[in-house]
Amino acid sequence: MLAVTILGNNSAVPAFDRHPTSQVVTLDGENFLVDCGEGTQIQMINYKIRRSRISHIFISHLHGDHYFGLIGLINSFSLLSHQQELHVFGPAPLQEIIEIQLRVADTRLCFPLHFHTISGPATLVDNERIEIKCFPTHHRIECYGFSFREKKKPRKLILESVKENNIPLSFYERLKDGEDFVTTSGQVIKNEWVTIEAPKGKFYAFCADTKYNEAMIEHIKDADMIYHETTYLDNLRERAEDRFHSTSKQAALIAQKANVKKLLIGHFSSKYDTLEEFETEAREVFLNTELALEGVAYKV
Amino acid sequence: MLAVTILGNNSAVPAFDRHPTSQVVTLDGENFLVDCGEGTQIQMINYKIRRSRISHIFISHLHGDHYFGLIGLINSFSLLSHQQELHVFGPAPLQEIIEIQLRVADTRLCFPLHFHTISGPATLVDNERIEIKCFPTHHRIECYGFSFREKKKPRKLILESVKENNIPLSFYERLKDGEDFVTTSGQVIKNEWVTIEAPKGKFYAFCADTKYNEAMIEHIKDADMIYHETTYLDNLRERAEDRFHSTSKQAALIAQKANVKKLLIGHFSSKYDTLEEFETEAREVFLNTELALEGVAYKV
Repeated sequence: MLAVTILGNNSAVPAFDRHPTSQVVTLDGENFLVDCGEGTQIQMINYKIRRSRISHIFISHLHGDHYFGLIGLINSFSLLSHQQELHVFGPAPLQEIIEIQLRVADTRLCFPLHFHTISGPATLVDNERIEIKCFPTHHRIECYGFSFREKKKPRKLILESVKENNIPLSFYERLKDGEDFVTTSGQVIKNEWVTIEAPKGKFYAFCADTKYNEAMIEHIKDADMIYHETTYLDNLRERAEDRFHSTSKQAALIAQKANVKKLLIGHFSSKYDTLEEFETEAREVFLNTELALEGVAYKV
Repeated sequence: MLAVTILGNNSAVPAFDRHPTSQVVTLDGENFLVDCGEGTQIQMINYKIRRSRISHIFISHLHGDHYFGLIGLINSFSLLSHQQELHVFGPAPLQEIIEIQLRVADTRLCFPLHFHTISGPATLVDNERIEIKCFPTHHRIECYGFSFREKKKPRKLILESVKENNIPLSFYERLKDGEDFVTTSGQVIKNEWVTIEAPKGKFYAFCADTKYNEAMIEHIKDADMIYHETTYLDNLRERAEDRFHSTSKQAALIAQKANVKKLLIGHFSSKYDTLEEFETEAREVFLNTELALEGVAYKV
């Protein structure tokens, strides 16, 4: 199951008990952390996110509200004797920023830490379970969104039919891959008689900080769910434009044009103490919109 | 009035709703921030500390639990249009660490930020209200404690006597400075007839991270209150020694030998979910000991 848990949904400065950007994408028990604003490790404790399950961290850009919590999290991993390899993906200067802070503290990490500098649209992770890509957004500084595509699972056996046809156990894996079975007498047992197709893998995209940007659409097209920033309501469209951010309506327009199934909105400005209007405005354009609320897990 | 408000009393990693080190020393409405672990700005919001009143920040050493929140606080100052000059005192590499993070975000601060590299015992601030000094502790990396001495206030006028003696208003300030008044007829009005001495200025010291260290005593001698770390209980004295930290009894022994009036203990290891034993152990050696609890303001 692919799901997203919001740890921080505010922009720039913490306010009204809302925290800077961070979210955890979960696939079958593995946690991928997306952005890591200050206090993310405390939010993880609050919401019982298992830090030990995190092997990959993706940082969209180097505005502080998206990464100031990273050094603290890495430091805590080490103090808590984390063993697993950690892969950190982010714009170029991130490695230097982290390394200088480890160096001055004379910190020797007890786990391997690998930095991966991201640029352009690129595939960052590709294994049998998931494909993770980055794509550029249109922000004041270099910034990337991330897409998470769950791989299609193997076909499922219809055990009753498999047994009826006397297919040996040793052939089960090949059945799951879609092969037909040929009996010793030369009879062909068609794969579709004994298996059913697994559901399609889910597709989620985190669109990071950006002004209204149709160039992004090709990277998120037909997603099951996207997270798009809505720093301002639509009456502050000019301010949004000036600051390379989006309004609720613009986020909804992107969701509509990209033909996604569901839109999560977040990255709210600290100007706003309540959030309902963001949802109302976005729904006028794209009905299946939800506020990204801290501590809530959204199933993709 | 000199007072200290605890924002974080835990060591190393956040745990049990305790936060990394930070405290605010307040003198007559001016706030001096001492250390700034991750999440300090959020603790300030929680405990209604007025960020706009902070003009000086003192960082004891570059272990993350004492400064990872500084960049976020500086960044927020700028986003919130802080106007006042900000003076940051800390070990040498701090300036580089902060500046690189401002640079990659293309952040231009809207207030003057001054870095002051600290070393040796030294006077950092000396004005008519307060004298602030740093002194080295004995930790794994370069580390400093800070002492805050409230300046003695001017003498107080006994208004009734002042008027009885027909001393003109224009001479009041000189009376407060201790001068005698001479009438036109040559009569001397002794200062002590018309004024009383103001109470002695208070003296507080933050002893930072340190192993048991008698060399520190000369810098904190006769203080009204000190804050001393007690990372471990006394049965882990060896571990404390190995890690350049102190136990509750060692903190109490320093308080006793330095002849201070009151001891605050903090910087508790995340091993401990409750804190009562720290107080009990310390009080066996030094009775006037209190746990430093987050959100509590202690009058010096």
